[in-house]
Amino acid sequence: MTAAPKASVCVLGTGLIGGSLLRAAVAAGYDAWGFNRSATGAGAARADGFDVTEDLPTVLTRAAAADALLVLAVPMPAVGRLLSAVATFAPHCALTDVVSVKAPVAAAVRKEGLAARYVGGHPMAGTAESGWAATDPELFRDAVWAVGVDEGTRAEPWTTVTRLALDCGAVVVPVVADEHDRAVARISHLPHVLAEALAVAGAAGGDLALGLAAGSFRDGTRVAGTAPDLVRAICEPNSGALLDVLDETLTLLGAARDSLRADNSLAELVEAGHDARQRYETAQRWEITDIHPGDHNWLAKLRDAGQRGGVITRLN
Amino acid sequence: MTAAPKASVCVLGTGLIGGSLLRAAVAAGYDAWGFNRSATGAGAARADGFDVTEDLPTVLTRAAAADALLVLAVPMPAVGRLLSAVATFAPHCALTDVVSVKAPVAAAVRKEGLAARYVGGHPMAGTAESGWAATDPELFRDAVWAVGVDEGTRAEPWTTVTRLALDCGAVVVPVVADEHDRAVARISHLPHVLAEALAVAGAAGGDLALGLAAGSFRDGTRVAGTAPDLVRAICEPNSGALLDVLDETLTLLGAARDSLRADNSLAELVEAGHDARQRYETAQRWEITDIHPGDHNWLAKLRDAGQRGGVITRLN
Repeated sequence: MTAAPKASVCVLGTGLIGGSLLRAAVAAGYDAWGFNRSATGAGAARADGFDVTEDLPTVLTRAAAADALLVLAVPMPAVGRLLSAVATFAPHCALTDVVSVKAPVAAAVRKEGLAARYVGGHPMAGTAESGWAATDPELFRDAVWAVGVDEGTRAEPWTTVTRLALDCGAVVVPVVADEHDRAVARISHLPHVLAEALAVAGAAGGDLALGLAAGSFRDGTRVAGTAPDLVRAICEPNSGALLDVLDETLTLLGAARDSLRADNSLAELVEAGHDARQRYETAQRWEITDIHPGDHNWLAKLRDAGQRGGVITRLN
Repeated sequence: MTAAPKASVCVLGTGLIGGSLLRAAVAAGYDAWGFNRSATGAGAARADGFDVTEDLPTVLTRAAAADALLVLAVPMPAVGRLLSAVATFAPHCALTDVVSVKAPVAAAVRKEGLAARYVGGHPMAGTAESGWAATDPELFRDAVWAVGVDEGTRAEPWTTVTRLALDCGAVVVPVVADEHDRAVARISHLPHVLAEALAVAGAAGGDLALGLAAGSFRDGTRVAGTAPDLVRAICEPNSGALLDVLDETLTLLGAARDSLRADNSLAELVEAGHDARQRYETAQRWEITDIHPGDHNWLAKLRDAGQRGGVITRLN
């Protein structure tokens, strides 16, 4: 928990991520309220004691009056409509988002003329569940939260967003939009695609194959349990980066297939995969302590630190 | 637990699976002992109070005298050498195995003239760990244990093997060797291959990508943590079936790539994958109760029941 005065927070979209963020912010002492497009979703949050309505103009007018931090917490396809309302009712609020891609959100923000106080965000947390019923104030505990350090980012909203992420229990990785999108194609969107393909291959073996399936299949297909619309909303807006890494993976798997056919050997793939998993398991986060928002060259320094595995765990 | 008198059990290989089997058999009241090729491995088991030595002729001579059930618990590449010793020292013992493929083991058994009392087996359990230190007498609790019902299988050793699997806490799926090998290519060997490829793709994104990785990457690459030699020993002996399903998966992923490129859509893959995972999650095991070993046509009936999701949970 950080000691500085807390911003008000207005969460737009109270599904798994937005709803959990609302819960976490309230638990951390923020004055926080929200909007949900569906009356059912808003009602479920209200029934749990949270201040959520389906009246977007009222929610945004209140945010403008309180100079609240706005958090866009809807899938990419719904971002444009929400930003248009923000531009109408609360154009001067600090603005962040928790959407799974960053460059397309930044482009939509620019299109609405809202770039000045925007800072991209993406908490790397989630489950195969969705909706208010799945929300959890502890969802972000010890999770990584990507926070944008793109050129032109201003220190004040950046600090507000970073503070909120830390107050929700996360550590912050500073990253620019394009690099974020290429990274998550590898470690979030490709896992979804491979899980779907593995599930299909398993089920094609019928009741016998599914009946014999154990841990490797269960874990390897877990995220295929995510609602199809949500998976598409996560992956498709990042199609450029995803296509690149999908091509790379098809080449790798094709080479493994050829080696298995020609030499009955999976050596190259298996050794490289084991090395890679070891690198993941032994990766050490280190704490970024000496870069302060607003300092000379702070954005470039934070970007470089994030690339090298640095995380922010507190603000002074 | 079943009430009939228990066979003696001689476990050949006391790594993760064999060692856990030895522990589970002793816990279930079997007179059980074992062999390990490495003096270190045998010593570790002895230090935990188990009767394990690295002297194969002595172990097998004892098994022959006790008419013990022999359990081959080594990776496929070590099976031939072990079977040759069995043919020399204990050719009349009932024989099973816990190897990850069934047709190649059956072929090696036939080659040594040991088919008469052989019944294939494969407990669908394991972790990314290996060796005696990772053994656990509860490893097979509620796991599925494939037991062979190939043509020519005799009722007496089949009953002994099935009883042991049940006494270790597993449920038994009756299956013939070829169908087993095709099924595990889908739900065990393909998951290994995809996990290796995913790990490589993630690590290629450097510290930033690995630092952002969360649950989907962690679960999707878990089995890439398995020792490379063991993964190869599991997958490569099943290359025929694995190549088929790998080709199928490359076709599926290639189509998804093309659809993402042409139409920015992953709809087909994602919907099929979600349906498949739902089918896996909701698959119902049903209990095979009315087929008795030795009855007319019992092998064909059990094979058919296994194909339809039936499991054996007790023997009468």
